Amino acid sequence: MHSFRNDYSEGCHPNIIKALLDTNLEQQEGYGDDQYCQEAKELIKLKIKNQNADIHFVSAGTQANLIVISSILKPFESVISASTGHINVHETGAIEATGHKIETIFSEDGKLNPELIQSILEKFEDHHMTKPKLVYISNSTEVGTFYSKIELVNLSAFCKKNNLYLFMDGARLGSALCASINDLAFSDLSALTDVFYIGGTKNGALLGEAIIINNNNLKEDFKFHLKQRGALLSKGRLLGIQFRELFKENLYLDLASQANSMASILSSEIKNLGFEFLSESKTNQIFPILPNSIITELSKDFGFYVWKKIDNKNAAIRLVTSWATKKEVVEKFINTLKTIQP
Amino acid sequence: MHSFRNDYSEGCHPNIIKALLDTNLEQQEGYGDDQYCQEAKELIKLKIKNQNADIHFVSAGTQANLIVISSILKPFESVISASTGHINVHETGAIEATGHKIETIFSEDGKLNPELIQSILEKFEDHHMTKPKLVYISNSTEVGTFYSKIELVNLSAFCKKNNLYLFMDGARLGSALCASINDLAFSDLSALTDVFYIGGTKNGALLGEAIIINNNNLKEDFKFHLKQRGALLSKGRLLGIQFRELFKENLYLDLASQANSMASILSSEIKNLGFEFLSESKTNQIFPILPNSIITELSKDFGFYVWKKIDNKNAAIRLVTSWATKKEVVEKFINTLKTIQP
Amino acid sequence: MHSFRNDYSEGCHPNIIKALLDTNLEQQEGYGDDQYCQEAKELIKLKIKNQNADIHFVSAGTQANLIVISSILKPFESVISASTGHINVHETGAIEATGHKIETIFSEDGKLNPELIQSILEKFEDHHMTKPKLVYISNSTEVGTFYSKIELVNLSAFCKKNNLYLFMDGARLGSALCASINDLAFSDLSALTDVFYIGGTKNGALLGEAIIINNNNLKEDFKFHLKQRGALLSKGRLLGIQFRELFKENLYLDLASQANSMASILSSEIKNLGFEFLSESKTNQIFPILPNSIITELSKDFGFYVWKKIDNKNAAIRLVTSWATKKEVVEKFINTLKTIQP
Amino acid sequence: MHSFRNDYSEGCHPNIIKALLDTNLEQQEGYGDDQYCQEAKELIKLKIKNQNADIHFVSAGTQANLIVISSILKPFESVISASTGHINVHETGAIEATGHKIETIFSEDGKLNPELIQSILEKFEDHHMTKPKLVYISNSTEVGTFYSKIELVNLSAFCKKNNLYLFMDGARLGSALCASINDLAFSDLSALTDVFYIGGTKNGALLGEAIIINNNNLKEDFKFHLKQRGALLSKGRLLGIQFRELFKENLYLDLASQANSMASILSSEIKNLGFEFLSESKTNQIFPILPNSIITELSKDFGFYVWKKIDNKNAAIRLVTSWATKKEVVEKFINTLKTIQP
Repeated sequence: MHSFRNDYSEGCHPNIIKALLDTNLEQQEGYGDDQYCQEAKELIKLKIKNQNADIHFVSAGTQANLIVISSILKPFESVISASTGHINVHETGAIEATGHKIETIFSEDGKLNPELIQSILEKFEDHHMTKPKLVYISNSTEVGTFYSKIELVNLSAFCKKNNLYLFMDGARLGSALCASINDLAFSDLSALTDVFYIGGTKNGALLGEAIIINNNNLKEDFKFHLKQRGALLSKGRLLGIQFRELFKENLYLDLASQANSMASILSSEIKNLGFEFLSESKTNQIFPILPNSIITELSKDFGFYVWKKIDNKNAAIRLVTSWATKKEVVEKFINTLKTIQP
Repeated sequence: MHSFRNDYSEGCHPNIIKALLDTNLEQQEGYGDDQYCQEAKELIKLKIKNQNADIHFVSAGTQANLIVISSILKPFESVISASTGHINVHETGAIEATGHKIETIFSEDGKLNPELIQSILEKFEDHHMTKPKLVYISNSTEVGTFYSKIELVNLSAFCKKNNLYLFMDGARLGSALCASINDLAFSDLSALTDVFYIGGTKNGALLGEAIIINNNNLKEDFKFHLKQRGALLSKGRLLGIQFRELFKENLYLDLASQANSMASILSSEIKNLGFEFLSESKTNQIFPILPNSIITELSKDFGFYVWKKIDNKNAAIRLVTSWATKKEVVEKFINTLKTIQP
Repeated sequence: MHSFRNDYSEGCHPNIIKALLDTNLEQQEGYGDDQYCQEAKELIKLKIKNQNADIHFVSAGTQANLIVISSILKPFESVISASTGHINVHETGAIEATGHKIETIFSEDGKLNPELIQSILEKFEDHHMTKPKLVYISNSTEVGTFYSKIELVNLSAFCKKNNLYLFMDGARLGSALCASINDLAFSDLSALTDVFYIGGTKNGALLGEAIIINNNNLKEDFKFHLKQRGALLSKGRLLGIQFRELFKENLYLDLASQANSMASILSSEIKNLGFEFLSESKTNQIFPILPNSIITELSKDFGFYVWKKIDNKNAAIRLVTSWATKKEVVEKFINTLKTIQP
Repeated sequence: MHSFRNDYSEGCHPNIIKALLDTNLEQQEGYGDDQYCQEAKELIKLKIKNQNADIHFVSAGTQANLIVISSILKPFESVISASTGHINVHETGAIEATGHKIETIFSEDGKLNPELIQSILEKFEDHHMTKPKLVYISNSTEVGTFYSKIELVNLSAFCKKNNLYLFMDGARLGSALCASINDLAFSDLSALTDVFYIGGTKNGALLGEAIIINNNNLKEDFKFHLKQRGALLSKGRLLGIQFRELFKENLYLDLASQANSMASILSSEIKNLGFEFLSESKTNQIFPILPNSIITELSKDFGFYVWKKIDNKNAAIRLVTSWATKKEVVEKFINTLKTIQP
């Protein structure tokens, strides 16, 4: 039974296993001071067009989020997030556990914009309240949407004007940058965010997220935060080797494109069959709305989450594709769906 | 140039790479609910002879320490540690960052015993002080020593009597259990500690520590702590696959024995040359005291830390061996040392 | 110019100053172990009809909230609050600074009920989310409303059934219990909440809130939390002496009645003049809606907060009365308002 | 029975009660924005000769310590303290509860000096350790000693040179400044420390410590920290009124002188009787060493702590005097001691 539950069901891209094997018995410095972390950082700097970026590799998205956010904020400062934001919903209070409030605002498409942020800023009065200082966005978002260049330009300008830092959670950054109608590039992220991270785990790596610090004020002493939160791997090479492979030539974006294109086929075919969607997604997560009877039938052959009840007879399901999703599986899903159709 | 700096200079045991390759494109559940984590846990339960143990895999030692300790203690409770303890010296305040005081006591050999702990307990008065509730020990210790069975039996009984939990940091547990004159077995740890962890990173794995919770009172809801601290890997299989390999048959202890036996050769040969040691170590870390001139010469061909100045002419160095240390390198070191000798 | 800005503009009830003077040079034990704290606790136990209650005096409301909440919750557990709750809006992230998430829900009247709480519980899935464990309510609320007995009975039953603790912030508890149509008594709070506190600062004291712990499971070691958060006054007698005065006979409720009755006169008179209110308040905070031109005129002679813009021509103001508000001032306000009226 | 247990057994100086009474029914702004806090600050600025100081009043010493320290340090930075320091021993881990490690060093007389601090700085290596950033001293210390001007000048210069902040806990500052051979003045503290506080609770107030921030870099947003930690009293006037009285003319130092002179009489008389002392104290805490039999007899008529066992037959006791200690009581103590003497 094939699972469309998520994009971390498989291991890693074969090139990575090969690189691990090839370098396995070399001696390297520990804690990220090895040759491969160095090479990976150089490759990433080229790709993001920012030679001054500080780059740090960590194991997982929640870890990246909690370290970045707690390293930036003073005790009384808060982070602004869409209420659907991963840090607000699915990180077991990891941000609050570092002492900081998340100021949330509802956003239909999971994205933030100046108007939404402004509405939070306007509530701020004085020292009886937390002071909003950092804007957290995810790209692609938890509901499959992504930011266009003009949206990010506006958001970035608004943050600068209001003395707010901008941090992009890129756990699924590849799928955002490779979305069919996307016009954002890696280099834009260097120019428009203070910090962002490039998710490896959901796009070809065994584990690993690359934190990119663009703002000079936020670079100093970052390794202390990594160590204090338990994120500094003694065999840091494990992360460097993987990102070196992903950023050699175009592998990272190629993998994301493959994931998106499989999702895109699923989308069009399901649409052709007359079904609607919870959101207009161009990334690797799609949310078709199906009758419960069909969902029951599909779940005999495929794994996926039932995402949201629509009414008594219908629900939205979430289908996630990855670099490892094969076209045959997608076709099998569509064929099964056609068969079930009343 | 060969490095004796630490036991995490190389990658992993070849069996692990092979297992990663063999399982790479299978789909598995995320977050540790995969088949390999399950199998690894069963193998470990057999080895430690505790079918009721709760087992969780995490990425690194500091992460294991901070999660275990903060999951056990109430806000006003403290953890007792030797002042040389890793949590006190080399974790950038990770324990304090979760809100807890470490009560320290000097111990010549890096180990704790009832008398030392008693001296801390006697200082406790009332609610104006933190309440000691947990004893942290490392085995083998940061200075290369290890606990004998009778020592651990006494420590465990003392803790139970005084209503203290006992937690063993096993980042280098293999080297302790395989020390030449050791009489402790995995099964003793199940019986004598409330929680311990088995270090993979320093003994054959790419990364990974297996936290073993023996005390039923400490099992509930542990995964919430893992997630909140950013330790729950979405591709948890990466940890399960590695521990499955390490605990198939006797690989874990075989690797540690190899490391110890290389250290043992180094030790006897250096002793034969007339040098003394900072501590009597039977594990994979040894601390010979050498004249500075010899240290300078050696450092041209070998990597190691100068650990402690002894006097103006001599210092102790630290040599660490691992499962990957080859006999030829050890012999080369000894031969070089012989050549330098005045 | 008289201020209706808040109920902590004046000092304390004269009886308290007298008691401070009378006892000033007696020697007493420190840190709350004095005779007056003891006597005050006995008087409170009688009033709340709970001889087994644990009672602790602290200096301020935010302090009471952060200590109670952080003493109850495990690191991954959260507290449920109306989005208007004081802990969510006006405590500078004090709860999050102790590591805990506040789960908020919008409530028109600032009160929680089973349905609202149920909607939060239903969102909880597993260890990727914080686990709701405690319900925070304020009585009277931040918008002047209060809980009836049947409402609190239902809420309490719901919490018990769902394994949630119930904590009532009573910074303005007096005004709630003395509201004209109220049917809740002190003794109900003992039976229906796990913890509540009785606010002294806003009802006759110089400072001081009395935390009442009804649930036996929450009593142990509470003083450690007080000390750790900096709340244990060395001259604890200062708090004991005040609560002894407030709970001798009926002073506490008499003072609250006086505050409510002044608010009630303001309310009826303003209503008689044809104005509407933001909420139906029977407590010492009222929120009349007035034309901006009238607000401007009134603010020349009286202090108050403009609470909420209604439209371009009107706004709600907040008027707060206290035990020290005199009838002449109330009459002066009404007369001024009548004069301004177009 | 008279108690020499501590200097917070009585209420406050009569002038303070009078001032509370005189101002009781005036309306004042809340949260420290009242006229009396303002006046008190002006009086203190004059006394400390620093018109640019930022001054904040809080309720208690542990509160002052935890707020000042956590407001200054980044998450990975630590505070240096003598192991006898109040923050290390008697604050229930309040500093660690805000996330920070205390680096301790043993000091015979409870004081720090450049050599002791240097020994801590030398242990610092890199991001695997907490970074010492702040030096905490108490004056007078927990063992009754105090800093001379040259000692503080040297300490301050050393801190500046090493990029460390210097914070003085002045819970018993009065007794230090009034010690018979003292040459430090209030104005020196403005010049030589980054932050210090003036203890009111142990020197004439009901409660209250005045935090003085001299370093401009540490002033911004301090009120957010106060509020977040529950330290901002709504009736802040209570603190302002008290410090206004204490700093009118010379009351604060007069009260401390009275306490010291009572301790001095006790000291000389006890010395005359042939007894030794645990430390040479010129402040209001003295530590005579007495035979256990005498201690038993004395404790029938006087309250005091047995501080430290010296041998099987003798112990040091702690006698604390205050502004309220009367000469008759001191004489009675000496007479009783003379009577008991074998």
